[in-house]
Amino acid sequence: MPSTSPLTTDLYELNMVQAYLDKGEDKEAVFEFFVRRLPPRRGFLLAAGLDDALDYLETLRFSAAEIDWLKSTGRFRDNLLDYLKNFRFTGDVHAIPEGSVCFPNEPLIRITAPLPQAQLVESRLINILHFQTLIASKAARMVLAAPGKILSDFGLRTAHGAEAGLYSARASYIAGFAGAANVLAGERYGVPIVGTMAHSFVQVHDDEMTAFENFARARPQGVILLIDTYDTEQGARKVVELAPRLAADGIAIRGVRIDSGDLTAMARKVRGILDDGGLSEVIILVSGGINEDVLQTMMKEKAPIDGFGIGVNLAASVDVPALDCAYKLQEYAGKPKRKLSEGKATWPARKQVWRAYDADGRMRGDILSLENDRQPGEALIVPVMRAGTRVAPVPTLAQIRERAAGDLKRLPGPLARLESGFEYPVNVADALTALAKQIEAKTK
Amino acid sequence: MPSTSPLTTDLYELNMVQAYLDKGEDKEAVFEFFVRRLPPRRGFLLAAGLDDALDYLETLRFSAAEIDWLKSTGRFRDNLLDYLKNFRFTGDVHAIPEGSVCFPNEPLIRITAPLPQAQLVESRLINILHFQTLIASKAARMVLAAPGKILSDFGLRTAHGAEAGLYSARASYIAGFAGAANVLAGERYGVPIVGTMAHSFVQVHDDEMTAFENFARARPQGVILLIDTYDTEQGARKVVELAPRLAADGIAIRGVRIDSGDLTAMARKVRGILDDGGLSEVIILVSGGINEDVLQTMMKEKAPIDGFGIGVNLAASVDVPALDCAYKLQEYAGKPKRKLSEGKATWPARKQVWRAYDADGRMRGDILSLENDRQPGEALIVPVMRAGTRVAPVPTLAQIRERAAGDLKRLPGPLARLESGFEYPVNVADALTALAKQIEAKTK
Repeated sequence: MPSTSPLTTDLYELNMVQAYLDKGEDKEAVFEFFVRRLPPRRGFLLAAGLDDALDYLETLRFSAAEIDWLKSTGRFRDNLLDYLKNFRFTGDVHAIPEGSVCFPNEPLIRITAPLPQAQLVESRLINILHFQTLIASKAARMVLAAPGKILSDFGLRTAHGAEAGLYSARASYIAGFAGAANVLAGERYGVPIVGTMAHSFVQVHDDEMTAFENFARARPQGVILLIDTYDTEQGARKVVELAPRLAADGIAIRGVRIDSGDLTAMARKVRGILDDGGLSEVIILVSGGINEDVLQTMMKEKAPIDGFGIGVNLAASVDVPALDCAYKLQEYAGKPKRKLSEGKATWPARKQVWRAYDADGRMRGDILSLENDRQPGEALIVPVMRAGTRVAPVPTLAQIRERAAGDLKRLPGPLARLESGFEYPVNVADALTALAKQIEAKTK
Repeated sequence: MPSTSPLTTDLYELNMVQAYLDKGEDKEAVFEFFVRRLPPRRGFLLAAGLDDALDYLETLRFSAAEIDWLKSTGRFRDNLLDYLKNFRFTGDVHAIPEGSVCFPNEPLIRITAPLPQAQLVESRLINILHFQTLIASKAARMVLAAPGKILSDFGLRTAHGAEAGLYSARASYIAGFAGAANVLAGERYGVPIVGTMAHSFVQVHDDEMTAFENFARARPQGVILLIDTYDTEQGARKVVELAPRLAADGIAIRGVRIDSGDLTAMARKVRGILDDGGLSEVIILVSGGINEDVLQTMMKEKAPIDGFGIGVNLAASVDVPALDCAYKLQEYAGKPKRKLSEGKATWPARKQVWRAYDADGRMRGDILSLENDRQPGEALIVPVMRAGTRVAPVPTLAQIRERAAGDLKRLPGPLARLESGFEYPVNVADALTALAKQIEAKTK
């Protein structure tokens, strides 16, 4: 997993921990992270990022150099510096498993730990969970829009930094993508890596045919030739001409890629050229400006396209680049807490989410309740870390991906569409409503 | 600087390098990185990310473990693995200095290196330069909308991963932000770090007054109290009550923060309460939903607000989360190259940008030319790395920030507005146009 500096946090976390330590304010605190509301056009979320979040909690350490730097700022006193020097996260974590479909107000993760610990980890936990959930949710829309197609994350270059590129590959793979171009996603997570060639490769050569042949003879696994550098149809004809020569040496062309122009129209022409040339097994990949709406349109048009390389629309989730989310104190020293700020009130206390299914297995509705207020349905929030150690078995990425596939199949029909016009019911149990009112009355 | 894995690259780069090595195709290649077009509502860009990009080039190494992993994939042969094992970037780099105002089609960076080197670094170079330029350009709009105000980057939590949070802090500081909440931005770049407190801090305490006092007595530099957890006006009155008690112990309250409700209306009420209480020197900061349009509105309303904490609208550049950009081969083995794909044609060869100024020092127009085709005005592209080593003097972050401030002052009047309705002239010199046509004719 990527190791990031423990200084990846907001200064206010350290300021608050300083104040807590000064007063010995270290009783058990409960924070929950949740999304406040769905963005436009979205009907559900797909939870992702938990494994990296737990990894962060398990490995959070401050080096001597980092402590020295903090000291050098003159902002902190020895009690804080000593605390950080010896920091270990010793709390409990409950969460909705990665790969689960989930909805606003449902806690994706609950941290139960001594107050300074639970506060210190806020910024980075949100940073990990928000982004991976954002991308998994976006990717799920693409997967739903293009069933059976090969979707690949090509987004590293315009992802927001290196980690965004890495997390995007992981989150989209969870949602059902076939793989990613980012090599690091292969090394770190075992995400299948995929790659074709760039226009520059063709331009370097005196002619396109030589470029294709040299690339194919370098024998990348699954040779994909980019055929639109000059004239796409001519490019396709060169592939037809080249294929038998390569086949004689045991090299198969797996596919061609088109990256510009009217992709559907061009794919039809290219499909015709390939088929006429006896290359019906050569697949067509396209890239450039692909998002879920484009995918849906191409599916309706029955474009003869087998796979899609999806860049910035996935990795920066361009239409919705952020979710409205929060990490809120829900209980301290055994007392439930509730934030009341205008327009930002939250549901207090430790909570559970219960999900009911129809006879055909589709999700029917969720109930948000107090943790131990048993409701009908399946309890989604499960323990994943106890006293700083993960609860076994830790799901593999493959298992997380299977869960997502299963959950996407169980979506209510309208939620599987890009414009659902349907609000999935998340009801609040009576006891939770009563507690919220009671706290509000007390505070006012 | 953040060290990232050299595997932060797209597989196709490695596939192409494999093919180049197989054929000994390693003559000098020239690539340029540029933005293709401005997003809606944007009139200019602010170049950022160069220092991190150069750092990447200088420090790019593959560890034995990374080579072993690449080998284990079965995708690459020994010539590539040996090449990567000994990899050092030995090329030249020219660039528009960080902090410069720039425009579409103007090369932000030019890489001149043996082909496999220049190709290998593509993905990560774009990843760094695209994102920092995106954020600096967004931040510049905020700086222009709120002259004289304290703007702070609060965006780490919903930035796209840890590196996005770090780069956002750097890029916004270059554009004129006062600082960032992200502690790592202080340690890595020397960006001033800023921090207040969270609602949870208030909620942990039995009453707000105790929370304020405990926080202030922990003596963070520049105590900022968050006053909207329960009732903002009452919060302000508590600050008035508390201030003399703290002053007696030599502790000053620097400011208050409001994070919810009608920020302008509330700021007026709070300003009144603070002034009436003799706290006219206590500043008012606000946060929550701030972007450049909100800033402009608040400035017009003369809201008594001194500073703004800006989160996701900055760090994820929510309205425009990506720029349309490209890293294109412009010359190989001495021959100019031009990509002709439909709708994506590029300007060939090594280029220079010349900027003319009006008598009052404002930018009048740019000319994009061949590198040595001298035009009137200032040449923007300068050498920054020779044979893999940076050209001294390397500008400090403070100098980069000064350059940005200077360039923002020299913007044509309309470009300093949020809706410019003005297209800055970037003309193409005759010789460059002629060369582009000539290549096109030859290729067709």
